[in-house]
Amino acid sequence: MESIRVFAPATVANVTCGFDVLGFAVNSPGDEVILRFKEKPGIQISQITGDDGRLSKDPNLNTVSIAIQDYLQRTDWSGGIDIELHKKMPFGSGLGSSAASAVAGVFAINKLLGDKLDTPALLPSAMEGERVACGSAHADNVAPSLYGGFVIIRSYDPLDVIKIPTPKDLYAVIIHPQIEVNTKDARNILKKKIAMQDAIRQWGNVAGLIAGLTQSDYGLISRSMEDVIVEPVRSLLIPAYDVVKNSALNAGALGCGISGSGPSLFALSQEEGVATTVGAAMCDAFRSEKIDSEIYISKINEKGPQVLD
Amino acid sequence: MESIRVFAPATVANVTCGFDVLGFAVNSPGDEVILRFKEKPGIQISQITGDDGRLSKDPNLNTVSIAIQDYLQRTDWSGGIDIELHKKMPFGSGLGSSAASAVAGVFAINKLLGDKLDTPALLPSAMEGERVACGSAHADNVAPSLYGGFVIIRSYDPLDVIKIPTPKDLYAVIIHPQIEVNTKDARNILKKKIAMQDAIRQWGNVAGLIAGLTQSDYGLISRSMEDVIVEPVRSLLIPAYDVVKNSALNAGALGCGISGSGPSLFALSQEEGVATTVGAAMCDAFRSEKIDSEIYISKINEKGPQVLD
Repeated sequence: MESIRVFAPATVANVTCGFDVLGFAVNSPGDEVILRFKEKPGIQISQITGDDGRLSKDPNLNTVSIAIQDYLQRTDWSGGIDIELHKKMPFGSGLGSSAASAVAGVFAINKLLGDKLDTPALLPSAMEGERVACGSAHADNVAPSLYGGFVIIRSYDPLDVIKIPTPKDLYAVIIHPQIEVNTKDARNILKKKIAMQDAIRQWGNVAGLIAGLTQSDYGLISRSMEDVIVEPVRSLLIPAYDVVKNSALNAGALGCGISGSGPSLFALSQEEGVATTVGAAMCDAFRSEKIDSEIYISKINEKGPQVLD
Repeated sequence: MESIRVFAPATVANVTCGFDVLGFAVNSPGDEVILRFKEKPGIQISQITGDDGRLSKDPNLNTVSIAIQDYLQRTDWSGGIDIELHKKMPFGSGLGSSAASAVAGVFAINKLLGDKLDTPALLPSAMEGERVACGSAHADNVAPSLYGGFVIIRSYDPLDVIKIPTPKDLYAVIIHPQIEVNTKDARNILKKKIAMQDAIRQWGNVAGLIAGLTQSDYGLISRSMEDVIVEPVRSLLIPAYDVVKNSALNAGALGCGISGSGPSLFALSQEEGVATTVGAAMCDAFRSEKIDSEIYISKINEKGPQVLD
């Protein structure tokens, strides 16, 4: 194998009540990375598309190359690699854009070099890539992009990531309104202290959501998709949030919330037909508020990254 | 059927990280209730044993009779019932003593009258009994005693109780040290506000624990049995807590924590032999601190209350 082309999926972090501990992957959108051996040792980025010129081609500043560099250091390989990155999803949208790039890069280099590491061992390198983009090595997008399906990040110290089963009829709608939310603002407006009663309600919902997902209990998933801690604060940054969320629920969604730190929203639905209806309703709701949006509807991605050819 | 004798199990509420939202039932100890039809309408309590004279025989003040009265009002039945209550577990121990009595009463009257209500419909009446004993209609002991197995109390408003699967090799040790802890103190010393970072760690553990239980992943159950919110405060009320907990973990327990609001501790183990070793180690640890204790070792009770004859 002289070269490899890999797709890694976009992800929804938090998933209502599961702030900072839960995420899932979707089939669309996602990023593509192409790697080729080159004669001269070292890493170079020869091409980036779909980024409107916003990403650096300096291997020391780019998410993909940093993730790959970390992998190469850990596996003690010192040849030459050329990278192409094809961004196929919006930036700063709350869909784990940088995570998808990092995961695509790490998965691709591992395949190209003959699976030197297993999947869990790839995670730390992908997290290093995420650190460049976000300032900290969060796993809540990287882990579901790498593992596929729904992933719990139980703990960072020590790192403990658990993939749980995906109910087979579950479909995700992601809607990305054409507005900008600064992720730093989204984190800074959260309170450092919260009421015990709210925390109890939140972890009751977390318990219900995980039980619902592992048992394919769609009613329980629906009842548990409630966030009393983060949504009440962050939704204020997203114009027309309540209108769009209600349109999703009225159209039959199991639940709806902010994707990551926004501004995208996601909804989960049982069956593809319902998801299509829900997506159209959300799109209409944003349009009625004079906000354009991109919409993605897909089954939950259970495989994580994939080799394309 | 002229009379009925029913057993209802003791329960462990909270289960480390699942404060106020999780509980499970054990096979031993538990309470027994005997009901008999009597000619004169109304409820009477003819006998209470095992309570050292601490419980009232006034039907308006006793947990069992109040739970039964609530049931009879809801089912519109107005005959005569005689109650015997045989307490077979300690009071104020953190094992859900009043809950077991209330559940035994409600389950018994429902059987005696020909299963007028299904199991979920019995819960509100048992909670009314609990309200007399505890001052509030908590469900975290009543629900697992009634349903058996592990039960999530996702929400009180609306009441949403979910039974989840029990890993088949899971055994519980409960140890009741001969000391008194006032439950009111145990609740009052908890903080009303908690740090967001602690709450996130707690619901990450809740997610892991529920995933571990539903998937029979004993390692994950073990890693998730961590409580960073309540245990650090309440354990201060239990002499030698750290010593006893460490003895359980060193003897091979998956995890260990406070049962309900204490002073009992519980430990979960994989396999009966390990549970026996763990129980002996915890008993020894209390004894080395000059504290006597009662110990109960049993499989998780998956059936809830049972008719004895």
